[in-house]
Amino acid sequence: MVERNPRSTKLSKSYLFREVADRVQSYKRKNPGAVLYNLGIGDTTIPLPQVVTQSLSGFFESLSTEEGYLGYQNEQGNELLRKSIIERFYPDTITPDEVFVSDGAKCDIGRLQILLSHLSPVLIQDPTYPVYRDGTLLSGDQSLIYAVCNPENDFFPNFSGSPKLLYICSPNNPTGTVLTYTQLTHLVSYAKEHGALIIFDAAYRYFIQGEQHPRTIYEIPGAKEIAIEVNSFSKFAGFTGIRLGWSIVPKTLKGLYDDYARLHSTIFNGASILAQKCGEVVLQEGFEACMASVEEYRANTKAMRDALLSEGETVYGGEHAPYVWIETKGKSSWEAFQYYLEEKQLIVTPGSGFGKGGEGFVRLSGFFHPSTRSAILDRLACSSYTSTLYS
Amino acid sequence: MVERNPRSTKLSKSYLFREVADRVQSYKRKNPGAVLYNLGIGDTTIPLPQVVTQSLSGFFESLSTEEGYLGYQNEQGNELLRKSIIERFYPDTITPDEVFVSDGAKCDIGRLQILLSHLSPVLIQDPTYPVYRDGTLLSGDQSLIYAVCNPENDFFPNFSGSPKLLYICSPNNPTGTVLTYTQLTHLVSYAKEHGALIIFDAAYRYFIQGEQHPRTIYEIPGAKEIAIEVNSFSKFAGFTGIRLGWSIVPKTLKGLYDDYARLHSTIFNGASILAQKCGEVVLQEGFEACMASVEEYRANTKAMRDALLSEGETVYGGEHAPYVWIETKGKSSWEAFQYYLEEKQLIVTPGSGFGKGGEGFVRLSGFFHPSTRSAILDRLACSSYTSTLYS
Repeated sequence: MVERNPRSTKLSKSYLFREVADRVQSYKRKNPGAVLYNLGIGDTTIPLPQVVTQSLSGFFESLSTEEGYLGYQNEQGNELLRKSIIERFYPDTITPDEVFVSDGAKCDIGRLQILLSHLSPVLIQDPTYPVYRDGTLLSGDQSLIYAVCNPENDFFPNFSGSPKLLYICSPNNPTGTVLTYTQLTHLVSYAKEHGALIIFDAAYRYFIQGEQHPRTIYEIPGAKEIAIEVNSFSKFAGFTGIRLGWSIVPKTLKGLYDDYARLHSTIFNGASILAQKCGEVVLQEGFEACMASVEEYRANTKAMRDALLSEGETVYGGEHAPYVWIETKGKSSWEAFQYYLEEKQLIVTPGSGFGKGGEGFVRLSGFFHPSTRSAILDRLACSSYTSTLYS
Repeated sequence: MVERNPRSTKLSKSYLFREVADRVQSYKRKNPGAVLYNLGIGDTTIPLPQVVTQSLSGFFESLSTEEGYLGYQNEQGNELLRKSIIERFYPDTITPDEVFVSDGAKCDIGRLQILLSHLSPVLIQDPTYPVYRDGTLLSGDQSLIYAVCNPENDFFPNFSGSPKLLYICSPNNPTGTVLTYTQLTHLVSYAKEHGALIIFDAAYRYFIQGEQHPRTIYEIPGAKEIAIEVNSFSKFAGFTGIRLGWSIVPKTLKGLYDDYARLHSTIFNGASILAQKCGEVVLQEGFEACMASVEEYRANTKAMRDALLSEGETVYGGEHAPYVWIETKGKSSWEAFQYYLEEKQLIVTPGSGFGKGGEGFVRLSGFFHPSTRSAILDRLACSSYTSTLYS
């Protein structure tokens, strides 16, 4: 029999969202009439703007013509799309050949973890989006530093243990908090002084309001020498099923830039041309419509946050991110998950699923459909609401 | 400065197809009027069947409706597609939950290499499709056995060195040869006796004619205990830009099955729903039209092979695969590449780009557009043809 890879055994048994799905299925079997609202997984719910879908029919049909058919394309992504990404998000700081278009931020992180398997120790914010931890465990033998981020340290990790690679997500999944210019400058300084590299995940940048928080790490001087940034169309354009993202690997990273270009074309063939075309339209004529959807999710999140605060809950995040992070006050995260499931018929995500540092919290996502907003608020705001009303 | 990963330094400087592209660009700059035909990269050229693109437009428009919008889907691929793959290609041998839908065989191999980084030594057929070698070098520290496959050994590797992981591609890229039942049975027996694992790449199965050669490794009894198979829509459905493939990881591999399911959902979010929809249509109403395109590529390849044989060339492959493998008779592979480029204005692939075992050969691909067939045959068949005719 073929042996397992010892690295695989380092992962905990079940992936967070699978465990949540299993518990929800179990509840549904016992309560077939239950109407559940999902505040769990951060999945988009608002349909794609018509301007996007309409402009693409012609493109699809052209693929069955001699003139329009397209085979293999540049693995790095088509140039118009890369230029549009620069114009929208990195004017004057990044060039198109520093953009690597992909099938999503999570997939890019998986590839970057192959590139960076030599950097140790690795700082993981705790709680963390699982792929930073699990992907690192699968692809290398580095030691991990779990840097707790909680209300006591203003959700900012400390750097004890001298990490050489740092995964930083801001606006943060799962806590919904966001780094300030001062905090991010501190991070960049640490990396520069210690020859460390930062993977900066900016997939939620579109939820930042005002001018008090950086939307990309490259707003911080010197960041191009020590940071790779990953991003995604998933959350701002509703592409969670369509699959499109990108990474910025600055040429100032020198050898790493060439090595990533090589790795990317070795084990990846580029994002689907269908997804890339959708992305082009989104960044041109579809952008305002996408931002209108972001506004709806923002309104969802604000309403949840306000309702929870008025109920006396202790709440973090939710102002510059689509996630609200709630203290569970004496309950464990999974106990609170069951409480929300059984008493309010709401699916939330247990904070402990994101690491030990998330124990004692649950995450609520603002990505539900706006048409369900008032029903969700009723359940959140009414302390006396229990599922018996619906059973 | 952040250090490079030592693994990255083990790769040769340039990826084969980039080097070819650079040389072609250089030739074009010097000969702006040249009309080149590309027999190099194995890229499809026949447009998608209309039945595929037409059904996609309706699906895509539904994504901008409340009823039709789709977000995250099962990372493993939608069930209808997995069932269709089973019905078409693995009736009675594999179950849908052993199918992992992906964005292509090359990308799957990259993920499998993370799963299998503990298996050493690794047998690489020499010549080889580059990702088997380069992806292994990037993701692990295994030792590699380059097993030469050439006319002397009937293109069948020997197993000296006791490999624990074997990459086997049949029909073979680049040599265009195909394994017999006897050969593949021998491979499976070796793996079973030595606790080794086979990665079997069947991306070209659609080019096999008759019943003398296995189309999947699972035709060999016992293979489900020692083999993972990768496959792709790229070559039979023209999806090189659309990106869709799958891997079969049998449950009889036990721990490896669970570990791959975990890995796959950790660093991958599933193939684009647009590509998956295209794949469903291809396997249903689009299948015959796709097979008609395969017939065209087959006719291209047969015509090339016949022309070369009639010119006295020594030719291998090309009967059950879209590639012809030609001995260069005293010239090096890159010299022969330059000869075809400059004298016949044909782009071929130097065999040495696929490994030392490919030195002394070039690969010709039958994926050119059928409308160019007669012009290509003129150049191949006419010994006296030189580019001066066209310059």
